[in-house]
Amino acid sequence: MSEKILLAHGSGSKLSHDLVEKILVPSLTNPILAQLDDAAVFPLSGRLAFTTDSYVVNPIFFPGGDIGRLAVCGTVNDLSTSGARPLYLSLALIIEEGLELDDLRRVIESVRNTAAEAGVQIVTGDTKVVNRGKADRLFINTAGIGLIQEGVDISGSHVRPGDKIILSGGIGEHGIAVMSRREGLEFKVPVVSDCAPLNRMVAGMLKASNNIHSLRDPTRGGLASTLSEFALQSGVGIIIEEGKIPVHDGVRGACELLGLDPLYIANEGKMVAAVAPEDAVAVLASMQGNRYGTQAALIGEVTAEHKGRVIMKTRIGASRIVDLPAGEILPRIC
Amino acid sequence: MSEKILLAHGSGSKLSHDLVEKILVPSLTNPILAQLDDAAVFPLSGRLAFTTDSYVVNPIFFPGGDIGRLAVCGTVNDLSTSGARPLYLSLALIIEEGLELDDLRRVIESVRNTAAEAGVQIVTGDTKVVNRGKADRLFINTAGIGLIQEGVDISGSHVRPGDKIILSGGIGEHGIAVMSRREGLEFKVPVVSDCAPLNRMVAGMLKASNNIHSLRDPTRGGLASTLSEFALQSGVGIIIEEGKIPVHDGVRGACELLGLDPLYIANEGKMVAAVAPEDAVAVLASMQGNRYGTQAALIGEVTAEHKGRVIMKTRIGASRIVDLPAGEILPRIC
Repeated sequence: MSEKILLAHGSGSKLSHDLVEKILVPSLTNPILAQLDDAAVFPLSGRLAFTTDSYVVNPIFFPGGDIGRLAVCGTVNDLSTSGARPLYLSLALIIEEGLELDDLRRVIESVRNTAAEAGVQIVTGDTKVVNRGKADRLFINTAGIGLIQEGVDISGSHVRPGDKIILSGGIGEHGIAVMSRREGLEFKVPVVSDCAPLNRMVAGMLKASNNIHSLRDPTRGGLASTLSEFALQSGVGIIIEEGKIPVHDGVRGACELLGLDPLYIANEGKMVAAVAPEDAVAVLASMQGNRYGTQAALIGEVTAEHKGRVIMKTRIGASRIVDLPAGEILPRIC
Repeated sequence: MSEKILLAHGSGSKLSHDLVEKILVPSLTNPILAQLDDAAVFPLSGRLAFTTDSYVVNPIFFPGGDIGRLAVCGTVNDLSTSGARPLYLSLALIIEEGLELDDLRRVIESVRNTAAEAGVQIVTGDTKVVNRGKADRLFINTAGIGLIQEGVDISGSHVRPGDKIILSGGIGEHGIAVMSRREGLEFKVPVVSDCAPLNRMVAGMLKASNNIHSLRDPTRGGLASTLSEFALQSGVGIIIEEGKIPVHDGVRGACELLGLDPLYIANEGKMVAAVAPEDAVAVLASMQGNRYGTQAALIGEVTAEHKGRVIMKTRIGASRIVDLPAGEILPRIC
């Protein structure tokens, strides 16, 4: 087999069959995928969650992860935000002609390892190849299906006055890690992406409480966007305390240097929860017991005032409005 | 709103919220999508089909369709090949910075109309924007979920000796239509893409017979690839008759002119079925009664000999092996 991806790898030809049968299927194999029909078939019953995301991160390998790990985590985490247990993922590749086959192998290996960690199966897929210069090495789309347990009803529109806002750990690590690799920047304290599958942490939270109202992973637009969306979708006000938001020293340093606000920087392994006050301590403890939630913190609460707004009490005691970002901050972070 | 897509349209910023809330959601709206959480939630029970495809067709508008219609039809048809009734689709856009907003609106309009024709709902989505020169105007990924009726068990591995091979109409129209637009070619007899959702035709076929063993839509690699896949997956031989395969005059002329074989040219609105001989006439009649199957024809049969091979009896009485295509024929047709 050629050592670089050719247009013919995406054409339905012998080469594309080889690519699927020698690289993709053996690495990702499971009985549903192995059927190799145009659609995967499996039995499933209940309330389902269904989501999709494309990943165009540049570069495709970065400190703490790569586009393959990102593509699995992103969709696993989006399913988790509905309280679903993620089960089945699709994997669709858009490859630029000329990509090194070894790079593709590395990414697929990472997809496999991350899927195994999360306990999900890749059951269907697609590969397209476009001419050199018409994409940027590799784009990945994953869609996913999960199953929501009876009694769980979680939505960005269910945040209620009195709820506590809990954040699972330090913010901005993914965005700063990708940008530092892309721009060739080196910071005193190196920053590694937080890219991680959070479904097991969320499963623990759901065991700890029946009163989790809302969950969201603060990716593009960062914590600021996620909280703004909660406030707008639920028609509530959210008050957070700057001093309680965990920020890794490396992220803080990089943001100061570059004039960025960590509130707006993307995360790929963090979860924000709005929880009824009586259960906040139990949920927080459950998160802290998971490897991806050791730094979890209670960062604020929900109010009936300031509807649709997020307000931050700063370290020096002032208050400022946290708005949706106005424009692009760091393109192609995910 | 700006008249061209900016990087900020994909950033989780106000502009990206505007794009979603002013262009995407109003056009595609339904109660599940309108929830606007990271995952769509709906009840569903039974044997499910799940599939994904990315679309990178160039140009994005072509005679008989566009990338939006293609993205809905392709996934609807892939679900139909498992005998599933397509229900829910995801829609993920990768947009090159600078795309005209009006072109995006036209594509979304087309997604909406095609989804309405097929009776499916777009329930979740994603939008990414990449810098100018890092994609080619617009790539779309759709994933889809369908429900398989009890008793239906269709797979490319279920073709049996004695089965009749039925094709729903003329081959090669999509590939030739896209190529003619892309290369600025004009043929005596104009060719229009066959791009169409075939789920209603397949529903009729399943009503007409409980003995449909295999279904596949001959897209990339054309009829030759689909039949080769059937032969390989099921370990059977397939014998087809050249004279019985419908080919539109325009496709025949274009292929003669360009030295192409219509057997290898992509279709986007055709279905190939392997059916038990006793039900072949009923299935054929049911296809011919559908608007997308009026030219349906019985083109061959399955044998226990020539395992893994497709053999074509030519018009002049010779036999030749129809193999998988060796390399790329027409890139970026879908």
